[in-house]
Amino acid sequence: MTITLYDIPSRSEVNAWSPATWRIRYILNLKGIAHKTEWVEFPDIEKRHKELGIPHSSLKPDGTPNYTVPAIHDPSTGVYLSESTDIAEYLEKTYPNTPIFPHETLGLQWSFVDLFRSTALSALWQFVVPATYQQMNRASDAYFRLTREKMFGKKLEELAPKGDLGVSEWARFKNDLGKVDVWYSKTNGPYLLGDTISWADIVIAAYLTWFKVVFGKDSQEWKDISSWHGGRWGRLVDNLRKYATVV
Amino acid sequence: MTITLYDIPSRSEVNAWSPATWRIRYILNLKGIAHKTEWVEFPDIEKRHKELGIPHSSLKPDGTPNYTVPAIHDPSTGVYLSESTDIAEYLEKTYPNTPIFPHETLGLQWSFVDLFRSTALSALWQFVVPATYQQMNRASDAYFRLTREKMFGKKLEELAPKGDLGVSEWARFKNDLGKVDVWYSKTNGPYLLGDTISWADIVIAAYLTWFKVVFGKDSQEWKDISSWHGGRWGRLVDNLRKYATVV
Repeated sequence: MTITLYDIPSRSEVNAWSPATWRIRYILNLKGIAHKTEWVEFPDIEKRHKELGIPHSSLKPDGTPNYTVPAIHDPSTGVYLSESTDIAEYLEKTYPNTPIFPHETLGLQWSFVDLFRSTALSALWQFVVPATYQQMNRASDAYFRLTREKMFGKKLEELAPKGDLGVSEWARFKNDLGKVDVWYSKTNGPYLLGDTISWADIVIAAYLTWFKVVFGKDSQEWKDISSWHGGRWGRLVDNLRKYATVV
Repeated sequence: MTITLYDIPSRSEVNAWSPATWRIRYILNLKGIAHKTEWVEFPDIEKRHKELGIPHSSLKPDGTPNYTVPAIHDPSTGVYLSESTDIAEYLEKTYPNTPIFPHETLGLQWSFVDLFRSTALSALWQFVVPATYQQMNRASDAYFRLTREKMFGKKLEELAPKGDLGVSEWARFKNDLGKVDVWYSKTNGPYLLGDTISWADIVIAAYLTWFKVVFGKDSQEWKDISSWHGGRWGRLVDNLRKYATVV
């Protein structure tokens, strides 16, 4: 039986870019779960989810349901599910081999992601969102522009800081990752639990992969990031490359 | 050999109140390490640390060294050390029994505390700081007032929100703890790692113990907190009571 992963395509070489769906792709590959991707452009997600009966993942500010990817269909259980953390928990319960929440760390790892997202990466969005727009297919670009400009209250072209501010905000992003580097440096291996890959690494690697995909592996941006902090981030993504197969 | 824990006294029944020193007291008791407390009033900390050769833990905004408790002296190794997270790591390395960072979770737990402090408890200070002042000994109260009023830019008497704002801020504190409750509810036991007490629980229990000490165990504040979220916080502090001995 093959799980279907619903993901958003792009013009990029590997197609997949979303940091939320990368989380799930990494888990599926890490656990060796047979799967295939169904690519859904942004404006089609709601319609496709309703056809399939995939529940919404949250409510929009106006109270209407928000349909998002990643979503999965697991034919072996009949489950349709969206929202990356819910899917991660479902996959862990259903396919407990190669645990991503080992040693009962689910609560601690859950807190890590909640807190990490709300604090450690505030400088990231302004750089990566405009670069992501450059990779959208024609079918998604108007939707992407509309929703992101509403979200940030700025034209996409005005989002990335330029000149001195660009330099200092890029340094702030490096500094944010520096905090994460301190946590990693407390361990005796390449991962946050030492030699064991876990959810926290997957979440961070998924953000980094997003950068690598939308800027390109030969970009100055990726060269910068992958060299920071003794090359920790480049190594992390390299270490997970065998679980990055897009099928 | 008996470790000395340097702590700040108070008028409260159990003397100890500081959430930073409670972390270390919980660890010493949990690991069964022989220790005694030397009580140092706020204005005497710098002098005492310099006499003993305890290093400063940070720099003040003006660049001068900041001497703080908790601090410890371990005669079996000759180590003098301050700053609760450094002490926690030292104790774990030197006394590895009953690990507080089990399964290589040091990096993950470290991130938890960094992130937790910077986000999850923003409503706490305004309530607990004025209540702490009420428990200061005469020797420390002027120092406490001066430093805290500078820190918060308000008279201590104006810090606790009153009336409707008091009610809504108290609800915000409950809501913050509610996020922590969600993480706990992911586990199968009373602690963040299930049945195993770890650093994350100790940090949270130390904050809760601070509330219990300075408001008093029969206060409405502690009755509120200990009943919230199905009684989770009251139970957590109760579960750790056997490691709360002050000697």
